Amino acid sequence: MPVSEEILAKKTTAVMPENPRQTDFQLVRVKSTWCRIKKGEAICNSEDKITTSQAKIGKSVSDIGISWTIEAPISFCYKVVETCSLLDPANSTLLFGHIIDPQQLEMAINSEREQRRFIVMDQIVDEYYGSKVRKYFEANNVHYKILSLPTTEETKSMDLVLSILQEVHNFGIDRRKEPIIAIGGGVCLDIVGLAASLYRRRTPYIRVPTTLLAYVDASVGAKNGVNFLQCKNKLGGYTPPVATFLDRSFIQTIPRRHISNGLGEILKMALMKHKGLFDLLKSRGKYMLDTKFQSHNGLVNRGDAALKTTRLAIETMLEELAPNLWEDDLDRLVDFGHLISPELEMKVLPSLMHGEAVNIDMAFMTYVAYERGLLTTEEKADIIQCMKGLELPVWHDDCNVHLIKRALVERLKHCGGQMRMPLPTGLGTAEIFNDISEDTLERAYKLWASECKAAMEEDFLIH
Amino acid sequence: MPVSEEILAKKTTAVMPENPRQTDFQLVRVKSTWCRIKKGEAICNSEDKITTSQAKIGKSVSDIGISWTIEAPISFCYKVVETCSLLDPANSTLLFGHIIDPQQLEMAINSEREQRRFIVMDQIVDEYYGSKVRKYFEANNVHYKILSLPTTEETKSMDLVLSILQEVHNFGIDRRKEPIIAIGGGVCLDIVGLAASLYRRRTPYIRVPTTLLAYVDASVGAKNGVNFLQCKNKLGGYTPPVATFLDRSFIQTIPRRHISNGLGEILKMALMKHKGLFDLLKSRGKYMLDTKFQSHNGLVNRGDAALKTTRLAIETMLEELAPNLWEDDLDRLVDFGHLISPELEMKVLPSLMHGEAVNIDMAFMTYVAYERGLLTTEEKADIIQCMKGLELPVWHDDCNVHLIKRALVERLKHCGGQMRMPLPTGLGTAEIFNDISEDTLERAYKLWASECKAAMEEDFLIH
Repeated sequence: MPVSEEILAKKTTAVMPENPRQTDFQLVRVKSTWCRIKKGEAICNSEDKITTSQAKIGKSVSDIGISWTIEAPISFCYKVVETCSLLDPANSTLLFGHIIDPQQLEMAINSEREQRRFIVMDQIVDEYYGSKVRKYFEANNVHYKILSLPTTEETKSMDLVLSILQEVHNFGIDRRKEPIIAIGGGVCLDIVGLAASLYRRRTPYIRVPTTLLAYVDASVGAKNGVNFLQCKNKLGGYTPPVATFLDRSFIQTIPRRHISNGLGEILKMALMKHKGLFDLLKSRGKYMLDTKFQSHNGLVNRGDAALKTTRLAIETMLEELAPNLWEDDLDRLVDFGHLISPELEMKVLPSLMHGEAVNIDMAFMTYVAYERGLLTTEEKADIIQCMKGLELPVWHDDCNVHLIKRALVERLKHCGGQMRMPLPTGLGTAEIFNDISEDTLERAYKLWASECKAAMEEDFLIH
Repeated sequence: MPVSEEILAKKTTAVMPENPRQTDFQLVRVKSTWCRIKKGEAICNSEDKITTSQAKIGKSVSDIGISWTIEAPISFCYKVVETCSLLDPANSTLLFGHIIDPQQLEMAINSEREQRRFIVMDQIVDEYYGSKVRKYFEANNVHYKILSLPTTEETKSMDLVLSILQEVHNFGIDRRKEPIIAIGGGVCLDIVGLAASLYRRRTPYIRVPTTLLAYVDASVGAKNGVNFLQCKNKLGGYTPPVATFLDRSFIQTIPRRHISNGLGEILKMALMKHKGLFDLLKSRGKYMLDTKFQSHNGLVNRGDAALKTTRLAIETMLEELAPNLWEDDLDRLVDFGHLISPELEMKVLPSLMHGEAVNIDMAFMTYVAYERGLLTTEEKADIIQCMKGLELPVWHDDCNVHLIKRALVERLKHCGGQMRMPLPTGLGTAEIFNDISEDTLERAYKLWASECKAAMEEDFLIH
């Protein structure tokens, strides 16, 4: 009797299996038919082409019934492509850059069939780039429809998803060949991602991020979602886009504060994983803010700080996301800055932007790491100084001990009873901790508060 | 230059990579951090525990940008458990049968915490089994909430999904430990499956099928969904339940016609894959209809036709679904009976049940296989005779040549330009064909019509 059934039987007087026999099967396809074979068993008819699946079926037979255990692997494949002049009609990336297979790509390009694309664009992005987008599709003889929508936390709902899908349905797309294109910030990409992944159980979609935050964050992973019952991203899924196309030139039109907002998430990756990225933010942060992540004279060169920074942010993020696309593993370094910030963000909405709330969380956690003996005084000061240089807030009056404790109770609930607290163990290295005491948290808070208040007074005296 | 980028460059004057360098990375975790390593590269610090992921990141660097290709595998694991007396308070399957890991199972059973469950039940099922279900949870001291809903094709909508989730939210569940339970027919299981998979990006759910069709079909796979804009299952996904619990005793309360309906899908699997199952349906079909799939005196024995039949139906279905859970491969034997039937079902709604429409499709396809030389006259007669024995319709006046052709044009559109027509090549074997000519289809239709009409006249004369 397998252990699990023994336990069920102990608990109850239920009709539980007496002598189950366990067999594990692999799956192979011969011609059109999938067959089970026992592990290690040979297939008789070897003339046919045989395909072996990674899927497995376990079968446990007893006197009272059969229990099958199915293990079915899926592999998601998607591209993240950095390009220049994405909206230059001569650049075919937006139309065909998502196709991975070279044969399919050639077929698509040489196809006589009219190309059709459905595009959802944020309304503000439309004001800046709408005419360029329209010209792009017109110059490429694409039959297109652009849906221009206000995509904000307030409109981020299932209602909007359904109204997008109504339009997609009216337009009519070939679900296999005509990906839906989303152009906008994180909210826009999240909404369209959910819409596409629901439509006909999965319609390919493309992400074109237009803010720095979306460029380094939403664009890289698989998550999508909408708000529900006043809860952020309560409904959603993990279906990745077929491709994300990155063009830094969009960032030149966003306000300075929004760039700091994106820098918050980049700093997170730097602190968790990459000393080089941290050094770049420290030394070139202000320059990148001033130049809005654009390259000097529009020319890209290898020494380009903005280019280096975004690439490192994306690569470090991909490293953490790819092995854990559906977040089955709850030990996630990318959660740094996201333990307390959701509570804070909700409380003070809309006064803090996402990256700002994340940064306040990270600032506090820096003190927790210091009190725990993971960081030196110099390292702590270095981190806080870097945050200030990126024009990110390192303190918020509403982020008090009560809020922190409440947020951590929520964390425990959603993380299977463990805190799983990512903390820096130096500049650019980190680990996940489950044993941070209440005492450490309180001492960290006190020091954080006193140093921040002292710094604010000093600032006040200087200015 | 990789082929794909060469093609993009040819097509356009775009700024396309000149000399990209391609590197493929694996991902390994050292302590809390995921790192990329080149394929074959060794890891220096061997003292730490190292985890290797199946995920891969490919990186192609050129003068104008980087293109990353991410391959991220997910593995779904779920149980299908045949049990008796599922609603007997002494049977703990409904509460804990979904837990695969023995340690977690023991923890759950011995947990001091109050168990909580949210249950969605079809209204008609509630009339028959509601009090038993309530008694079950009360006897086990479970804090529960039952939502009793009309689940029909008419109510199968995103609206219903959202109102279920509103109730789930009000009730409050531990997303990791308290699976949502759906008890009902296929429509109920589909709606709840979608609701659960959307809630917090994936909340575990359990399927308890109460009709024969749901028992052998909806319960086994991953699909869920709702209707949208008058289209069947237009919105949905592929997130499997954590477990399906099968109890044949529910079937004793469903009408005879509904049992035939389920037999249609079982016959599909028999014709595609299993001569033994076909023989069972042929010899014991009427008996199983008469006894509503119940075992003699409620006692199960190995010779039990209903038991054998349902097990074979489930196993053959699992073989085809597990290796292709997200339907990435369009060559699917389980599509047999589903090429023409969607069009027919929609046209005559609600006069045909799903399994009946499927059977009419299969009857026609049997003639196609015959005309193509895949079946002998005897085999064809055997199949049609078996269908009649199961009290399934083998003909419908509305299933004319026009409808058939229209349906096949739709099929071509959704299957990447190929017909992918599963056809029996004998009793219990099948293959997928892309080269069935219009002439074969027309000859098949003529013979089908004439034989069916002759049979109907004969019936008319006899009765």
